[in-house]
Amino acid sequence: MKQVIGGVTAPRGFLAAGLSAGIKQSGKPDLALIYSLLPCIASGVFTVNKMKAAPVLVSIEQITKAPSIQAIIANAGNANCATGKQGLCDAWKMVELTAEELDLLSSQVLVTSTGSIGKMLPMERVTRGIKHVVKRLSPKGGMQAARAIMTTDKLPKEISYRVSIGKQSFVIGGIAKGSGMIAPQMNLPHATMHAFITTDAAIDKKLLDPVLQKATEDSFNMVTVDNEMSTNDCVFVLANGMSGVKITKQHGLKEFKEALRAVCIYLAKLIAQDGEGANRLIEVSVKGAKNFKDARTVAKTVAGSELFKTAVFGGDPNFGRILSSAGASGAMFDPQKLIVQIGNVVLFKRGESFAKNQRKAEKFLRKKEVSVALDLGLGTGEAVAWGCDLSYDYVTINAKYHT
Amino acid sequence: MKQVIGGVTAPRGFLAAGLSAGIKQSGKPDLALIYSLLPCIASGVFTVNKMKAAPVLVSIEQITKAPSIQAIIANAGNANCATGKQGLCDAWKMVELTAEELDLLSSQVLVTSTGSIGKMLPMERVTRGIKHVVKRLSPKGGMQAARAIMTTDKLPKEISYRVSIGKQSFVIGGIAKGSGMIAPQMNLPHATMHAFITTDAAIDKKLLDPVLQKATEDSFNMVTVDNEMSTNDCVFVLANGMSGVKITKQHGLKEFKEALRAVCIYLAKLIAQDGEGANRLIEVSVKGAKNFKDARTVAKTVAGSELFKTAVFGGDPNFGRILSSAGASGAMFDPQKLIVQIGNVVLFKRGESFAKNQRKAEKFLRKKEVSVALDLGLGTGEAVAWGCDLSYDYVTINAKYHT
Repeated sequence: MKQVIGGVTAPRGFLAAGLSAGIKQSGKPDLALIYSLLPCIASGVFTVNKMKAAPVLVSIEQITKAPSIQAIIANAGNANCATGKQGLCDAWKMVELTAEELDLLSSQVLVTSTGSIGKMLPMERVTRGIKHVVKRLSPKGGMQAARAIMTTDKLPKEISYRVSIGKQSFVIGGIAKGSGMIAPQMNLPHATMHAFITTDAAIDKKLLDPVLQKATEDSFNMVTVDNEMSTNDCVFVLANGMSGVKITKQHGLKEFKEALRAVCIYLAKLIAQDGEGANRLIEVSVKGAKNFKDARTVAKTVAGSELFKTAVFGGDPNFGRILSSAGASGAMFDPQKLIVQIGNVVLFKRGESFAKNQRKAEKFLRKKEVSVALDLGLGTGEAVAWGCDLSYDYVTINAKYHT
Repeated sequence: MKQVIGGVTAPRGFLAAGLSAGIKQSGKPDLALIYSLLPCIASGVFTVNKMKAAPVLVSIEQITKAPSIQAIIANAGNANCATGKQGLCDAWKMVELTAEELDLLSSQVLVTSTGSIGKMLPMERVTRGIKHVVKRLSPKGGMQAARAIMTTDKLPKEISYRVSIGKQSFVIGGIAKGSGMIAPQMNLPHATMHAFITTDAAIDKKLLDPVLQKATEDSFNMVTVDNEMSTNDCVFVLANGMSGVKITKQHGLKEFKEALRAVCIYLAKLIAQDGEGANRLIEVSVKGAKNFKDARTVAKTVAGSELFKTAVFGGDPNFGRILSSAGASGAMFDPQKLIVQIGNVVLFKRGESFAKNQRKAEKFLRKKEVSVALDLGLGTGEAVAWGCDLSYDYVTINAKYHT
């Protein structure tokens, strides 16, 4: 597996574009389109929030029913959530307009939105935007699309890899956005983070769905910026088969799984790293949990701990906050068996604190990636979660991100 | 029920004191003692955190086994948590020293600690402090004790009421501390908030236990400052019977329940209001939930939402964050039946947003008590939760509260 350039337009046959349609007041890019020259097998995972945005409801219906997908239209600056019947009509209209301009069936288009909740989309601008963005589609448009789906993100997020299977190879690429309201829990047809992944491998939906679900569970679902599950989170994979590599249980599945997982984890870490106000990525690794579920629970609870996140911002190796948070997580837990490290410094081991090691741990808090490890000593459950520090800037961004 | 002065020393036969034993580096008061002239029936609820501090383990054992309790010794500045066997010895030593100085059985003393995790108590100072604090016991010492249990609290917290039952009356009073690491979940023998409640009513333990559990569930367990369940939370009630009023199922139980609940809710709201960095109390009232559990879940999730708390700090009636948080809570939820208000302003009603009402809602965000109401329209479950805004000061306090 080798990193290549291009993001979602790295795989063969994918075009993309992004532009400013005037949905954001700032005039920054806010409308993205991804298009495949051939129909794609598609899989999607969606937020489990019961307050689902209109485009989420529409894309769930599309992905459940449509035999193939060929485009994703995505706007930023307005979440089209809590917008009632009109909002639902607007989401369908985005689908239909895009299909019309691309000469597709309306069943072949997915739609997403991200931004403020509770406001109607400026449909005149969206309509004009869709007409323009179609004209700008380009095999080099991946980064443009990555920019046009940003909200409070500081950086666009993209990655692509070429994966070899014997003498054959396919390409997989992805873009993502997400900075605040990040604690996704996504399930198959059913994260506001968005990730759009494209590949020129060929794969059946029956194989693709579980691979995406598992990759999501180990990546996006293990990220938390602020413990806020959004109304609009979603991840899509489009596979157009144009590499000529057919993934089957017997051929290439292991490589495909690894590649999709790598794309998802890379993008998930970028989201945590670019969390609102974040200065540092926090990686919490848990092992020795009673089971996988407990491992996930502890890792995500510690990564989301407001007190620990603030301690990291302050450069304070306050392992007491790790202990308290892990103990409160609800997972099976025995202080007498627990080992806690920051970097490679042990701060708590089987019932006893090593407070004198805190000085040594401080240097690991100055790194851009702060690693915390917990060994629960109870079983074989392992998980990794990603978060970020809680800074003044998080407060500034969210006190001033006016509705 | 009439408010009276005195806090924990308002009921007959209770003495209290507080002083600086030198546990806090600041030199502020850090050791409190509450003492009853007669043995008390006692009930306690404790954090369900699996990383319980040593004094929590000791007090659970005491309250489970001892037929009567006569004193509570409580220090601030050090949580005596994650301190291993030595920490457990130290907690027992605090109990024994207090019993010795007061000429009690060691089974008659409860102990609590609050402060940093992972450091050993300075036992020489604690020992000297216990000897001194016993000498300062006074029937007017309630406020001294309230001050000596504070950590990052800005204000001491106390309340007392006289309750009439026909021609008789009893007094109930309480003190509490808690500002950060506040999202208690406490159960009978089994919150770092502390609340110590005294009464001169007489009541059997069998009656008192469920009354305390219910009052805790509706008060302290519904408070969140930072979604952090502490290792040291506990609430104690001591009833010495010196008013001559005997509470039974047939006599006074309703009044006693109301009074204990009023004390708990008063103190719980003070904790939220004095949350670290807080400028405003947020009260989230939920009705129409499928059941009581769902109502509690929604109320506490919204009250704890980092994004909504930051919006309140910014004076932004961002009801989208209320919707998203309620939808993510896991409770049964239907946007088509939901009504959301800030103050008396409806912002969302049965699927439709009223974004134009946001201006009107702004004035309710400038009040010291911000009230949010959700009607889920599904059933009869009701609950109220309390939280506070998330400000720059929360970050400052916790980035600098060094271990």
